[in-house]
Amino acid sequence: MNIEKGEMLYEGKAKRLFATSNPNELIMEFKDDLTAFDATKTGEFSGKGTINNRVSALMMGALSELGIESCFIRMLDENHSLVRRVEIVPIEVIVRYEAHGSLSRRYGILPGLICDPPLVEIGYKDDRLHDPFFTDEIAALMGLATRDELAKIRYMALVTGEKLREIWGRFEIKLLDFKLEFGRYQPGEGPMRIILADEVTPDTCRLIDSKTGEKLDKDLFRFDIGDVGSGYRKVLERRSHAG
Amino acid sequence: MNIEKGEMLYEGKAKRLFATSNPNELIMEFKDDLTAFDATKTGEFSGKGTINNRVSALMMGALSELGIESCFIRMLDENHSLVRRVEIVPIEVIVRYEAHGSLSRRYGILPGLICDPPLVEIGYKDDRLHDPFFTDEIAALMGLATRDELAKIRYMALVTGEKLREIWGRFEIKLLDFKLEFGRYQPGEGPMRIILADEVTPDTCRLIDSKTGEKLDKDLFRFDIGDVGSGYRKVLERRSHAG
Repeated sequence: MNIEKGEMLYEGKAKRLFATSNPNELIMEFKDDLTAFDATKTGEFSGKGTINNRVSALMMGALSELGIESCFIRMLDENHSLVRRVEIVPIEVIVRYEAHGSLSRRYGILPGLICDPPLVEIGYKDDRLHDPFFTDEIAALMGLATRDELAKIRYMALVTGEKLREIWGRFEIKLLDFKLEFGRYQPGEGPMRIILADEVTPDTCRLIDSKTGEKLDKDLFRFDIGDVGSGYRKVLERRSHAG
Repeated sequence: MNIEKGEMLYEGKAKRLFATSNPNELIMEFKDDLTAFDATKTGEFSGKGTINNRVSALMMGALSELGIESCFIRMLDENHSLVRRVEIVPIEVIVRYEAHGSLSRRYGILPGLICDPPLVEIGYKDDRLHDPFFTDEIAALMGLATRDELAKIRYMALVTGEKLREIWGRFEIKLLDFKLEFGRYQPGEGPMRIILADEVTPDTCRLIDSKTGEKLDKDLFRFDIGDVGSGYRKVLERRSHAG
């Protein structure tokens, strides 16, 4: 790695963030840890951080070419990337094309129900409160984002989703739902912009093989239904070959 | 009671419904039971059913004079009323003028935060799933109500809230939040209409004395902070005197 890691600024379930000598840039480290169900289930597999770092770099790069701005700048080594420093909007955004996971469980919806138009859910990023699902009205009441920011975030989430479906689709992977985070990016001059933050990986996307329906994401770990390492590696291999 | 109770059609936490000889009308019985926190806390006090029956009759009557149609027809005796038979929309609607209770707890919002405009929350009425909070998008996805019905329900909830604040305000009680349910009412001829269902009582309204701030509602029971019977009785006495 040709950039020196400074102070650790944040440690999450699957990533760490470190300062660099440039106040506008951070180092994102991808860990091998896996967590599920609000971190009540934990695990890891060797190489997971590397896979996610690479997949996220490839996906963020492809999104950038399609006009979606993100925090990603470039990969530094196997499990580190250089990213823009943003002020994270404490709102998780989930876009769903089919009902699975927490949506199914919460409301007793039969898994696989088609969401057309796609369903956008937002939740309050707060581990202590278990990331509760909420609405634009409550987010605005709490002062977490302005109405304009919420509208921008919803729009970007839907457009990003369309492009992610297109990109994953090129290598025969179907995107069923995904989670995004956003950040406020304020470069030296110029106005504040909302850009994609966090990661785009099999940790944050529910992915299946378009032809066989084989699961290729964190559900392998969540439900112990297959080799999670093998699933993640397939995503990376196909993605890498697709270029 | 001058009408004969037929088959019991429903038993809930605080009420029972019975058939009558008229297929469009039911008897609503108010029980003395109290439940809170998703029925994990239960209790009762003698006379509670009578108080709620009377308060709901007075409130629904006053709403009707102000143009809000409800299921209430007339009181039959101390703890029974005659109501229109509706098809309940399985959606609970909460309107909040201040953040208290589940909203405060779920998001760590300081109790008392002013909601201006009022906050409308909707939840899926399903005991097994613990009445989870949701959105119009999810309610429509689940086929629980049409978009038109949801718009009508939100509008009616806000207008009903304004009128409830006016009515409670007349006898120096401040409404902080309340829960409503709605039903589809299809009289013999004429189109289906959405009308108020359920009850308007200290079980479903968070009420305080406008001057002293004294609690007059189910919070007395929820948090064991005073004589719940005395609070409910004050609401009924003031309401009755106000005429």
